[in-house]
Formats: sequence, structure tokens, C-alpha cells
Amino acid sequence: MNNRFAPLPDPPYYAVIFTAQRLEGDFGYGAMADRMVELAQEQPGYIGVESTRDETGLGITISYWKDEQALIQWKQVSEHLLAQKLGKTRWYEYYTLRVAKVERAYSGPEGRD
Amino acid sequence: MNNRFAPLPDPPYYAVIFTAQRLEGDFGYGAMADRMVELAQEQPGYIGVESTRDETGLGITISYWKDEQALIQWKQVSEHLLAQKLGKTRWYEYYTLRVAKVERAYSGPEGRD
Repeated sequence: MNNRFAPLPDPPYYAVIFTAQRLEGDFGYGAMADRMVELAQEQPGYIGVESTRDETGLGITISYWKDEQALIQWKQVSEHLLAQKLGKTRWYEYYTLRVAKVERAYSGPEGRD
Repeated sequence: MNNRFAPLPDPPYYAVIFTAQRLEGDFGYGAMADRMVELAQEQPGYIGVESTRDETGLGITISYWKDEQALIQWKQVSEHLLAQKLGKTRWYEYYTLRVAKVERAYSGPEGRD
């Protein structure tokens, strides 16, 4: 594995699934995205993040949290509130956000020949 | 929005979060990935799929299912079992799979200026 995978603690824990289509142009997005990862890592209950985006600008970012309280607190962090606002006004054509409780998790491939 | 977003039915429903680092070379991956999306769409309880991968081969695919029974049935579909086996032996350097129950969901940006 590489460092773009989040840890796999024993469930249950929470996932925030953010799927987003970027608009064209950076408009400060790259710097803010880096800062948000840095800031999330400092939050209580943070487990990890997984993020990828293709050449069309379709991205999926999933952050993992120990419990609901942790993700609710993260939603309210002031710099993150600013990022959420800029996401709405500058960066995203469309996005969906889902909060989900992870019940089972595993990794592979153990079965490689 | 575009057609790479899954529908947003009222929760609860299930998400299967598959994060995977591809090995180099196609080895039939592209054709099988297309076939799996086609086949998943025919399964009872299928809601939709969201998938993206960057230029390093780090991909996230999330399939959404009406209930646990639907995703358990999907796991056992014979062509899908073959794809799972080839994933282990040919396509992925490492992957994680998480089953999560979606509790809340919304879309944006409603708040664009």
C-alpha cells in the first residue's frame, strides 16, 4: 500500500463521502485543499482521508472519523467553513455529500497467486 | 450535475467504498470495469455508482445499494466473482473495501452567489 490510503481501524466509525465536479480554473483551490487536509489531521477523532480526481475534474474525497461528534466538530471549524463557502461560490459545478457509518472493512489482495 | 453522480434517495441505504491502487498495464481491466458497471445496473437494489481515478492509478469507486441483501447478492454474482479474483491476481497493488450505511445526504451548491 502507499500513503494515500486511510488506516483501517475496527468498525464502527464514520465516513464523509464527498463527490464533486470541479469548475475550470484553480481560484485558490489547490492551496485550500492542501490546507484542509493539514487542518483535518489536527482534529479530534480524525482517522484519515482518501482522495482522487480524474482529468475531467470529477473528484471523490472520503474523510474518516471516529464518531459523529468528530465530524460535526470538523464541519464547524472556521477555516473549513470558509472552504465550504468557496466551494459553493467558486470551485464546484455540482457536489454530493453523504455521511455514512462504516460497518465492515477489509483490504487486499491477500489472494494474489 | 452530470451523469457521473449517483442518485440521492432518502437514507438509509448502503455504500460500498472501494479504494484501489492499480498496477501498470490493462490486462483486460477496462473491458471488465465497463462490464461490471453494466452488470451492477441489472441487480436488484442497485442505486448507482460513482468512480474516478487519477493519473497515478489511485481510484475510488463507490456503489450504492438499497439494503444489505442487495450488496451481498451482488458480491456473489458469478461474473463479479471472476472480476474480484482478477482484481486480486492482476490489477491491484492494494485495495480497501468498506461497507457503510448512509445516514444523511445532500447536494450543492445551492448557495452559489
